Amino acid sequence: MHPFTTHPTEAVSSLGELGLIAAMRRWLGKVSPPAPHGIGDDCAVLPASSRTALVTVDPVIYGEHFNDAVAPSAAGAKLFKRNLSDIAAMGGRPRAAVVAIALDETVKIEWLAGFYRGLASIGRRYRVPVVGGDIARHRGGLVVTLTLIGEASGPRVLSRRGARIGDRIYVTGRLGGSLRGHHLSFTPRLAEGAWLAARPDVRSLMDLSDGLAKDLHALTPANAQPVLHENRIPVSTAARACARSSGRPPLAHALEDGEDYELLFTVSRQTPDADFVRAWRRRFRLPLSCIGEFQSMNRPLPAGAVDLGRHHGFEHLKP
Amino acid sequence: MHPFTTHPTEAVSSLGELGLIAAMRRWLGKVSPPAPHGIGDDCAVLPASSRTALVTVDPVIYGEHFNDAVAPSAAGAKLFKRNLSDIAAMGGRPRAAVVAIALDETVKIEWLAGFYRGLASIGRRYRVPVVGGDIARHRGGLVVTLTLIGEASGPRVLSRRGARIGDRIYVTGRLGGSLRGHHLSFTPRLAEGAWLAARPDVRSLMDLSDGLAKDLHALTPANAQPVLHENRIPVSTAARACARSSGRPPLAHALEDGEDYELLFTVSRQTPDADFVRAWRRRFRLPLSCIGEFQSMNRPLPAGAVDLGRHHGFEHLKP
Repeated sequence: MHPFTTHPTEAVSSLGELGLIAAMRRWLGKVSPPAPHGIGDDCAVLPASSRTALVTVDPVIYGEHFNDAVAPSAAGAKLFKRNLSDIAAMGGRPRAAVVAIALDETVKIEWLAGFYRGLASIGRRYRVPVVGGDIARHRGGLVVTLTLIGEASGPRVLSRRGARIGDRIYVTGRLGGSLRGHHLSFTPRLAEGAWLAARPDVRSLMDLSDGLAKDLHALTPANAQPVLHENRIPVSTAARACARSSGRPPLAHALEDGEDYELLFTVSRQTPDADFVRAWRRRFRLPLSCIGEFQSMNRPLPAGAVDLGRHHGFEHLKP
Repeated sequence: MHPFTTHPTEAVSSLGELGLIAAMRRWLGKVSPPAPHGIGDDCAVLPASSRTALVTVDPVIYGEHFNDAVAPSAAGAKLFKRNLSDIAAMGGRPRAAVVAIALDETVKIEWLAGFYRGLASIGRRYRVPVVGGDIARHRGGLVVTLTLIGEASGPRVLSRRGARIGDRIYVTGRLGGSLRGHHLSFTPRLAEGAWLAARPDVRSLMDLSDGLAKDLHALTPANAQPVLHENRIPVSTAARACARSSGRPPLAHALEDGEDYELLFTVSRQTPDADFVRAWRRRFRLPLSCIGEFQSMNRPLPAGAVDLGRHHGFEHLKP
């Protein structure tokens, strides 16, 4: 749906500011608790928690992250899920969200209702209230920024740092071709992230947002290089479809396409691969692939290893 | 300073994404702690706190909240201070900020450096680290959204609700004409807010952002009306200057202009005004005015009371 209208009665400005806030609370339904724990005071108030806190923020921007072809509810759901994926990526659990919307006065009420119902559906599914936010005028634009507050799900949070030479590298799901639908339909890997954080043999964790080839740098320890075995990369059906139209290999799509929202993590080599995979399968049906390991920078790459120097992920700002 | 450039070497895109993040951390200096407590992981990590948490979010948008006439450092400082004022408005203290920037690739490096140095100056002054954020492309736009995490400064947070009929209404500082400079130079009233929250006779609190006449509705209890005494409203010098060019009374500017960022609160009538003011003056030099009280909806307004029905504050979306 195109978000803007030329009919004044269809536009958000016809509601006025207070009317718009009331409508937002209605669209959010139970996901909008009463003030001061929800929308309506200077700050949202959250009860004290004895756990380490997590904070992440991501926007969706009209013309960048969604366009007229995307249903407004799908854009809203995507915004919430992108942030949930970042909480999953540290093994945390989500607590509450705040949403700042910068919008032209000609945004359609119908579009915004759909967007907020999309937020509400995710808030209900993952039991995360929308506790506050802001509305600001932005002539000609539509930018919605969600900040998600979370907390550790257990005694530790799993950062990107911690991998060592010899650690094996794992990835969940299948990679590539996200723009064919997965970028909207993906599931944030919250249960999986929390499970990983509870295992001491898992040493580092992140989610894949800019493509494996780019994101893996963040997990790579100093003086190490990742060895990825070409035949072990889980290439998605969508990556194969993209390859047919792009003329590039399916593997290139799996390595370079962004928005996989899968988990990438490393496990100590002390744990045999078969043991780890067995423990995973007892708990999850989601595919898990051991795609390689970290080796010393000085050693040559073995046969069948991916030459990562030839692959690049998504760049947010082209140099 | 105009934020955009036509010279590719002056543009943020010339830094690339990683270069830009490195530059932001440099501009922030000590205000940017190392990951995972700062920029660089999927979430920012904050130590557990035994206090009630507060969350607030506000943006600054090019063409709305600042323009080419505003120094980039002043725009950055304003963004941080707007959010600090919301924490002050509940008697809280700030803990950490995350900053999401949506920007055209032609934004000048020099502009962004100034903006981040403005953020850094406020982060240093109030000891609030910038612990994370996001960078996204936004063709033709420049929207920076800051989310501030805070916590209660003592056993309670002060919400907007709690005033009763008979409570006296107080305001700090002087009101009106903010666009003549105060909207950039204001001081968030953090110490004052924390002091108010610690006094049981203070029953409700907010900050003034959209003008006294509009904001006061949020504190007004059901079945009550505010009685504001015209001669007690602290009219700023800037409001008088605005009145000379607008032809409207200085009082109208004090009541209707937005962006005062002063505190508005109510005190139980059990505490004599003289006692309250004496306690305040022992602690603060900031002007304090008792501007009126809440009375029953049924009683007629006394002589000299402001007719609030004739005054309107700032509307974020014009109906």
